[in-house]
Amino acid sequence: MLIREATAADWPAIWPFFHVIVAAGETYPYPRDLGEPAGRQMWMLPPPGRTVVAVDPDGTVLGSAKMNPNSTGGGSHIASASFMVDPRYARRGVGRALGEHVLAWARAEGYRGIQFNSVIETNTAAVALWQSLGFEIMTTIPEGFRHPAKGFVGFHIMYRRL
Amino acid sequence: MLIREATAADWPAIWPFFHVIVAAGETYPYPRDLGEPAGRQMWMLPPPGRTVVAVDPDGTVLGSAKMNPNSTGGGSHIASASFMVDPRYARRGVGRALGEHVLAWARAEGYRGIQFNSVIETNTAAVALWQSLGFEIMTTIPEGFRHPAKGFVGFHIMYRRL
Repeated sequence: MLIREATAADWPAIWPFFHVIVAAGETYPYPRDLGEPAGRQMWMLPPPGRTVVAVDPDGTVLGSAKMNPNSTGGGSHIASASFMVDPRYARRGVGRALGEHVLAWARAEGYRGIQFNSVIETNTAAVALWQSLGFEIMTTIPEGFRHPAKGFVGFHIMYRRL
Repeated sequence: MLIREATAADWPAIWPFFHVIVAAGETYPYPRDLGEPAGRQMWMLPPPGRTVVAVDPDGTVLGSAKMNPNSTGGGSHIASASFMVDPRYARRGVGRALGEHVLAWARAEGYRGIQFNSVIETNTAAVALWQSLGFEIMTTIPEGFRHPAKGFVGFHIMYRRL
């Protein structure tokens, strides 16, 4: 698996699984009916943000991550990131590889920490993955997320100092 | 003191104290050199957001608040808000009146909670005010904010269920 900078030419390979994940509405607080142009604008970030893809040796896009300052001004030394792995390629370490890549990027860019603003508590695989990469659950906003099947559930704010 | 909807005609009265507060860089993670057009776009929110002003009986604008959903999709039932009080009219209860107004607005709009994403811990007057209005410090991101005089300080994520 290789992780490389995403280009505009990668978006057609990202959109199908991005769309499936967003439309399911279970893991991200994005509008479930988010259209393709708005999705592209949200995911394919210009500097100081950055978007990467994880590809297998034949070039298949397995997943993608975007990373960016979490805030501006006096808050711009904290990064944030979001991750999407094609469900067809789950359980292959794609999310972990993307997470490790984001940690390396944030360190290299001089960020002092990474904050995840909204990790849905029912997304237990993601919570466990981020914990294994050194992120802590700083707090949980109770009933902060409306899950389409489970109703109101909490979301975690997770953080890792760099 | 009256709190009413802000209109485009109020912006010239908001900008001077908005600019002073943003340029000081002590209480909001906004770019300190934020220009007037970008400031206007950031502060004067279209629906579903909303911006109000607190005015005294002669019409002087004493402060302003903006309020908005904190997120989209499955997170759109949590509100957020930001507040600016003209330093010349501090200690008159303007912030409290704006805060109470935002609480009433959020309840009326059916939000289930209000989340403040970044209350700088050195802004003790604001922290105390929000606590007195029922907000809790959910967590503090250590060194999450670079204060121009005090260096790296924490910021609180505060929340109140409605």
